[in-house]
Amino acid sequence: MLTGNLLDPLPPAARDEVLDTLLTCGAVRIERIVSTGQSSPPGFWYDQDETEFVVLLQGAARLRFEDGELTMTPGSYVTIAPHRRHRLEWTQADPPTVWLAVFFP
Amino acid sequence: MLTGNLLDPLPPAARDEVLDTLLTCGAVRIERIVSTGQSSPPGFWYDQDETEFVVLLQGAARLRFEDGELTMTPGSYVTIAPHRRHRLEWTQADPPTVWLAVFFP
Repeated sequence: MLTGNLLDPLPPAARDEVLDTLLTCGAVRIERIVSTGQSSPPGFWYDQDETEFVVLLQGAARLRFEDGELTMTPGSYVTIAPHRRHRLEWTQADPPTVWLAVFFP
Repeated sequence: MLTGNLLDPLPPAARDEVLDTLLTCGAVRIERIVSTGQSSPPGFWYDQDETEFVVLLQGAARLRFEDGELTMTPGSYVTIAPHRRHRLEWTQADPPTVWLAVFFP
């Protein structure tokens, strides 16, 4: 049985975001992402082949899409369609920002 | 763009758990479940065809499996394999218990 807690323990703060794959089953992948102030590099946009459903559990963040911004607080979720370009403008560092992301075709 | 907050607004407390399907995409289904003290009826066991990944966002709960119990607090997650029988022994009513569940084949 795969069980744990997304909020405890958290990894030590690092230069990059810390990704943990919790589950890969067929074409579905579930990750925990811990952000500690990181943002996407200037000019960088995610452009993914998969659909991503992401929910913020702790902390705060600001996502940018080509047509607007989305401020995320605990409980906020968003479904990002394949090839919907987006970037991470800002994440809260302390306490860390914790995301759960579900990727599927 | 499908966006919202799992914690706000919450539905009014009801006799039954309140399920909201946030996303259905191919064989993947994502639901928010709000529990306000409900538990599975005596002798009832869930016996599902799908894999379920479930994370608790707020509140608390106790799941029973045939070989043990799992106490869940905010951030707790568990992957429940198909046909792994389980039941909900207890959920916190106030503040309500909020779950995110991902179902897939």
